[in-house]
Amino acid sequence: MRIAGVDGGQTGLRLRVVGPDGSTATATSGGFDYDAGDPAATILALVKQAWARLPAAERRPVARVGMGLTGDHRPDEVRRIEAGVADLLGAPEVRVAHDSVTAHLGALAGKPGVVVVAGTGVVALARTGSGTTGATARVDGWGHLLGDEGGGFAVGRHGLRAALAAYDGRGPRTLLAAAAADRFGPLDGLPRRLYGTGGTVADVASFSRQVADVARAGDPVAAAIWHDGVTALVDTTRAAVSRYLELAASRPDTTVPVSWAGGLMGVADLVREPWRRRVETEIPRAHVVDPAGDGLDGAVLLAEDA
Amino acid sequence: MRIAGVDGGQTGLRLRVVGPDGSTATATSGGFDYDAGDPAATILALVKQAWARLPAAERRPVARVGMGLTGDHRPDEVRRIEAGVADLLGAPEVRVAHDSVTAHLGALAGKPGVVVVAGTGVVALARTGSGTTGATARVDGWGHLLGDEGGGFAVGRHGLRAALAAYDGRGPRTLLAAAAADRFGPLDGLPRRLYGTGGTVADVASFSRQVADVARAGDPVAAAIWHDGVTALVDTTRAAVSRYLELAASRPDTTVPVSWAGGLMGVADLVREPWRRRVETEIPRAHVVDPAGDGLDGAVLLAEDA
Repeated sequence: MRIAGVDGGQTGLRLRVVGPDGSTATATSGGFDYDAGDPAATILALVKQAWARLPAAERRPVARVGMGLTGDHRPDEVRRIEAGVADLLGAPEVRVAHDSVTAHLGALAGKPGVVVVAGTGVVALARTGSGTTGATARVDGWGHLLGDEGGGFAVGRHGLRAALAAYDGRGPRTLLAAAAADRFGPLDGLPRRLYGTGGTVADVASFSRQVADVARAGDPVAAAIWHDGVTALVDTTRAAVSRYLELAASRPDTTVPVSWAGGLMGVADLVREPWRRRVETEIPRAHVVDPAGDGLDGAVLLAEDA
Repeated sequence: MRIAGVDGGQTGLRLRVVGPDGSTATATSGGFDYDAGDPAATILALVKQAWARLPAAERRPVARVGMGLTGDHRPDEVRRIEAGVADLLGAPEVRVAHDSVTAHLGALAGKPGVVVVAGTGVVALARTGSGTTGATARVDGWGHLLGDEGGGFAVGRHGLRAALAAYDGRGPRTLLAAAAADRFGPLDGLPRRLYGTGGTVADVASFSRQVADVARAGDPVAAAIWHDGVTALVDTTRAAVSRYLELAASRPDTTVPVSWAGGLMGVADLVREPWRRRVETEIPRAHVVDPAGDGLDGAVLLAEDA
């Protein structure tokens, strides 16, 4: 059976076709912007683009598609996405899920537990059953203005705020001021250059790289931003583990497998390892496990799920 | 001599004509949105609307217009605004300034000192000379993502973040969760309802009213948000007073008059009075004075200034 998985996030969309023999072909296109006027049309265009980039021999009908998508879409939007993708890929069945669901499936290989996804945004998902069964709870994932605590946007924003506070004399001196000027030009014109460009969230999040460089150079302001970010991720993990235990109350002795996904977790020294250490010491029931796969693997699992 | 003043902020634009006998007529129109595609066209349309709302007898040419505008505009935009307003009001001369300049002129009646403007955003301006003379320094005013610390948007955002953290179990329980649900509907659909609506900044800032209600009801989380906001305003004031003293270094014994403007300073119990007390005790050289007038008075002064 030929199936396909789609992983659509804020930084890019990936599409993978898996043949009956297990062979795979993968193609990518652009990311999803929350401010897109018509999310369904945007996502369909991105799937179409990725599909067109597959080798011609791979562009044959698939039996089922699993999709993990960033953002909460209205039921009518989901139906349009399902219909459009079914049409494009010749698929009798299309399954759309929030990308935290496919991240969870991928990281825990379909098993129960908690997955913390930290990229530009942050969301944690607890699920008590295998595959897409069992009860679920979501923690954070509220977007850049309302939540996503400890994510790349939050870190980049705190870095820029600290840079401007230092520039103003409202806050302590920090190497972040020079780093921000290097990256974005003279600070006094920053608002005009950064606001309303359509890519503001991504630009701010990308500054987290400079916040990392400056923290590694020993700047205490930048180090504190990462420390606070990890604290937020630990708080989110703790809340998700608590929700898991509430939902699985019939199994009171359970330890909870906790894994991770997302680009920010790739920052091992400042994020993943401090987070892992603190989760293991501060959340007694949590048991951290390395991810088995990523969100695209999870989307393929969603398509395979019986 | 007939002159006119224009005060254009994020929540509304006001236009005042002052006759040779000192008689005045005032009209208002809508506010300025940072995300407006063409700021100059937007501002001209708002001035035109306000002008049209003046009594017909008042719509006669003026000798000079003073304008205070939110946001930093490019030189070509400022020239378009000047030319358009000159044309509309039959004015040989139009003077455009940042609205922190007209707030300063209005609050201190054209005298030197520091003015802290706290509304949706926050900016402080230090000026060492009378009218528009002397050296100036601006502190904060970086907009809702990069600064505006202690302003209405920041307070509303922290209120919503605390509500969602409580809802998730990531943060302490707070009455803000119920207040946010009352105001915006069920919390789990909040991102989809609040993001990308075009009025997100104003919607978030308006939640500061509920954060005030909840703080007055004794909620410690809400009280802490206001306390932190006042601390940010004191830090901004301290930085502006320091900049003033650097710029006026030849007069080392100076005490610095400090006044205020902006809607958030109208919240006397949670903002203005705590801010005033802390500025007077924590910033020895600062001397807080009640504002003589508002930004529209300042815009008229800008037009009158020789």
